[in-house]
Amino acid sequence: MHTFSLLQAKLTDGFWAQRQRVNAESTIKNVYLRFKETGRIDALKCQGNIQTHHFWDSDVAKWIEGVAYLLARKDDAQIRAWYEEAVNDIVSNQRQDGYFNSHFQVQFPDKIFTQREGHELYCAGHLFEAAVATSEYLHDTRLLTFAKKYATYIRLRFIEKRDTAFTTPGHEEIELALWRLFVHTGDTLYKELAEFFLNERGKKEKIDPFENAPTYLQAHAPIREQTTAQGHAVRALYLYIAMADMAMLNGDESLTQTLKCLFTDIIQRKSYVTGGIGSSHYGERFSVPYDLPPFQAYNETCASIALALFCDKMFQLTGEAVYADYWERVVYNGVLCGTSLNGDEFFYVNPLEMSMDKVHDNASSFFPELFPITQRVKVFECSCCPPNLCRFIERIPSFIFYGAQKQLTVAQYADATLQSELADVTMQANFPYDGKVRIAVNSHGQPITLRLRKPSWCEKTFANEKDGYLLYEGIFAGETISVDFAPTLRKVYPHPYVTDVQGKVCLTYGPLVLCAESIDNPHLRSVCVGDLSQASVQIQYGTPSVLTASLPTTYKCPTATLYAYHKPTVNDTVLTLIPYFAWANRGETDMKVWFPE
Amino acid sequence: MHTFSLLQAKLTDGFWAQRQRVNAESTIKNVYLRFKETGRIDALKCQGNIQTHHFWDSDVAKWIEGVAYLLARKDDAQIRAWYEEAVNDIVSNQRQDGYFNSHFQVQFPDKIFTQREGHELYCAGHLFEAAVATSEYLHDTRLLTFAKKYATYIRLRFIEKRDTAFTTPGHEEIELALWRLFVHTGDTLYKELAEFFLNERGKKEKIDPFENAPTYLQAHAPIREQTTAQGHAVRALYLYIAMADMAMLNGDESLTQTLKCLFTDIIQRKSYVTGGIGSSHYGERFSVPYDLPPFQAYNETCASIALALFCDKMFQLTGEAVYADYWERVVYNGVLCGTSLNGDEFFYVNPLEMSMDKVHDNASSFFPELFPITQRVKVFECSCCPPNLCRFIERIPSFIFYGAQKQLTVAQYADATLQSELADVTMQANFPYDGKVRIAVNSHGQPITLRLRKPSWCEKTFANEKDGYLLYEGIFAGETISVDFAPTLRKVYPHPYVTDVQGKVCLTYGPLVLCAESIDNPHLRSVCVGDLSQASVQIQYGTPSVLTASLPTTYKCPTATLYAYHKPTVNDTVLTLIPYFAWANRGETDMKVWFPE
Repeated sequence: MHTFSLLQAKLTDGFWAQRQRVNAESTIKNVYLRFKETGRIDALKCQGNIQTHHFWDSDVAKWIEGVAYLLARKDDAQIRAWYEEAVNDIVSNQRQDGYFNSHFQVQFPDKIFTQREGHELYCAGHLFEAAVATSEYLHDTRLLTFAKKYATYIRLRFIEKRDTAFTTPGHEEIELALWRLFVHTGDTLYKELAEFFLNERGKKEKIDPFENAPTYLQAHAPIREQTTAQGHAVRALYLYIAMADMAMLNGDESLTQTLKCLFTDIIQRKSYVTGGIGSSHYGERFSVPYDLPPFQAYNETCASIALALFCDKMFQLTGEAVYADYWERVVYNGVLCGTSLNGDEFFYVNPLEMSMDKVHDNASSFFPELFPITQRVKVFECSCCPPNLCRFIERIPSFIFYGAQKQLTVAQYADATLQSELADVTMQANFPYDGKVRIAVNSHGQPITLRLRKPSWCEKTFANEKDGYLLYEGIFAGETISVDFAPTLRKVYPHPYVTDVQGKVCLTYGPLVLCAESIDNPHLRSVCVGDLSQASVQIQYGTPSVLTASLPTTYKCPTATLYAYHKPTVNDTVLTLIPYFAWANRGETDMKVWFPE
Repeated sequence: MHTFSLLQAKLTDGFWAQRQRVNAESTIKNVYLRFKETGRIDALKCQGNIQTHHFWDSDVAKWIEGVAYLLARKDDAQIRAWYEEAVNDIVSNQRQDGYFNSHFQVQFPDKIFTQREGHELYCAGHLFEAAVATSEYLHDTRLLTFAKKYATYIRLRFIEKRDTAFTTPGHEEIELALWRLFVHTGDTLYKELAEFFLNERGKKEKIDPFENAPTYLQAHAPIREQTTAQGHAVRALYLYIAMADMAMLNGDESLTQTLKCLFTDIIQRKSYVTGGIGSSHYGERFSVPYDLPPFQAYNETCASIALALFCDKMFQLTGEAVYADYWERVVYNGVLCGTSLNGDEFFYVNPLEMSMDKVHDNASSFFPELFPITQRVKVFECSCCPPNLCRFIERIPSFIFYGAQKQLTVAQYADATLQSELADVTMQANFPYDGKVRIAVNSHGQPITLRLRKPSWCEKTFANEKDGYLLYEGIFAGETISVDFAPTLRKVYPHPYVTDVQGKVCLTYGPLVLCAESIDNPHLRSVCVGDLSQASVQIQYGTPSVLTASLPTTYKCPTATLYAYHKPTVNDTVLTLIPYFAWANRGETDMKVWFPE
């Protein structure tokens, strides 16, 4: 299957259009202003007397990529002026030989390509992605020209001269960006370079003992032998995305099987119910199977975005509904929790439980970096997640419709339109709050198969369902198909090996994982979840819409002693739940996703 | 109440006599040999060309203290020779002015008493305790003379000249040691010095920002305002012990109330079911109330020993059964788990759950110090716990009987004898495996009240029980009292605020907390505990005796997916449990104390 361009697939209203408005009016502007204040923007001027950082370029590149998508749908003079200046600074400071990195070329010109953890190729990759986006959506080819020259220089150093101190980049990204350059330009130079970097893995090149372990940066084995998710979660997923590109563009069936193993390892053993991955604070890393503690969860926002992008690639590669289904889970929960409802504050770490007590107690302690923060903040020292959200939110429409030979697949539900040779579509869907979908399709007189993904949370059965899809065949001339997936409040049970939540359940509504905050729930610490028959769900449509679930239930009363030979007594209470993505938007509060049953 | 000397109270057989044999034949020798190998012993020679460490002296001092108790009950030529050399090195290297610290006086003579974290007073305190023990039990006054001279020098510097860089020691110990010196010698110099150090707390002296926070080392408030347990657990408890000495020796009722608050805070909010305290790996510290994670438990062995010593003081101070009851809990579980059954290997950190997967996965990671080890080891770099066990195990008989005016209290049950003016006692008790106790008492023709503590785990009621004791009055002329406290397998429920074990239970047998190891339990990961009616307990008496509990129960079968809308299916299994203190004695294994109900 293939995706559609953002010029073809567009949002018209509803949940995601609202998030795009917040992105345009708040996130993209605020991220720029914070980057300006912290020196990231001015660093691009490559003057020797200012602070720089080895991966700041990637932060700005992601912002530029997001701006490209945004300006294509909605011009904004201020943002365009910022964009112009940043792009101009980048292209005018590119070295004669093609190299660009505002940190290394100014501060450490003699250290270029000598440090695996220098993130130079990671920055280059994000600049290449920005180059493709600005070329495709703004017809601005300055960054594309820049990228071509830079990629040629990288080829010279890594393949022709082989005079670099490493060949597998410490942080993946360039691999997937090179595939994108190849698809955009058709030039096989980028394909060769992408394959070079991918095939270097596992060649047991010398890795400095002071560097991270080979497993941490996925250099421990050839890509075809990497069947379990290991190491730093964002790095791992960026690699898997590039491997999926390779499998797709080369029609490589055995590599596809490897990728299915990786995906299975992640979703069956190493992901939170929110789709969050990389549970370990110790290195932003995948831990061992079933090690998914709720408070100590790491779950970097970028890792959730990377998983969503991997789901998209796997969906294109296989057409199997599970990938779009998991995209839905991780985006509504693991990605969206990374930003405040008003779009100007961000989480990097996304715990599934908050204890203000523990965080504040630890504030003066030895390892503050191992604890989550209680409130989103405007910028981080390592601020990769905010601009990743900028570009991801703009790309949402491209994950809704997927095309293939005489086949149109609707993967996600939203108020959206598609204009394409395959078909024109107008969809109305108040997802995720309402399961009703109305889709009008015009297949331009050609017979097609229309596939609507049936979400895994849907309890209904349909006469025309098969392999996770509702199937419709025929020549569509604008007639409307109506479906109601009818989301309900449901309990979710964890795998019994997830020790940290054994005996607990969480509650979901359609694709939304719900959570409870102490500001709504005085008995949050010991509230239990029983029967759902008395539960109700209230939805207040607005900007933003608000979903609240109320569940008459019980809580365990504090006992007189810390340990007792008798069960605690219980008392009645009402558990109030909100979507997990909306937590921490009303001040500091304790929060829980998992409750004893 | 008062305790009896180890010359009056003695073990004759059974559980604790066996542990004392292991201590004499294995622990004390092995600890010495490891200390010799690592340089701790030779450091006492105070030669400039060898490695030293700022608190090594305290390690050897604790060993000497243990040796004093041991040699008083059982001579051993090899141990005595080691003892002689160590004591000789210490006293002969004491400076003219009285100071002694093998690290500072050789390596940093210009830094004496300039660093709060230098542990000089901590080392001095342990040497003072060794001095009292060797004087009392071996009639060897060399260390006592040394200690008197050193204490006089400390008084000169801290009280007269006030020329030290700090007044509240970074690590408490000297306070309780000074009380011990005072009681042993009757010299009020030591009482004044102890009170000085105690009363300096909370005076807001300047604390270097690079030092630990005032709360961490209990310098944040005057002792009478410290009503919740804060900071480093061992330091805190050593302080509370000295405060209890002060309350007892000064008859200070208001300080007694403060100490009761502290004890309540610990046992009602901040201790594991094993009696372990200091749950946080972040600074070996008390965390916030109810933060008691089983795998990430810190629970230093020394902290358990310190809590047992605090229980003893509080029991002497108040006569209330709860303190002896908690002594029983922490000693049989939190202390004993610190050493292997054969006595030559040790845990410093005592988790209530082991996951080999997690530990091995983390081995290459960033913060290995935040994870437990899977097997006890022979020595640590910071090896405070092993010699603390040496001296504590020798002191066990002194915690069994407590005397007061015409009142004898039996606090703990063991095969033991007491010879005292108050009464002579011969006790037979196969604790902790059997609850039958036979006590023959001769009160030398005087009427006394005999109080037998009724353990809190005992389900029986007795006609003569009051406030946790069975009371017997009269003139005892050797008649035997028989009681059966009848331990049974019982479920223990945690306070509902202990998030990490919500919905779980643990199993106990009498005072013993039980655990299950994966080597006995193939379904350990998901085993549940239900009804106990089919459970059985097998005890094999021997060296050591072995208790095994078998519980027909169920485990949850691994589910097809990581998260599911339906409950996992269950299957039958038998859960095999052993005492928690005996875990990790048969090789590496996963272990659990808490099970979903």
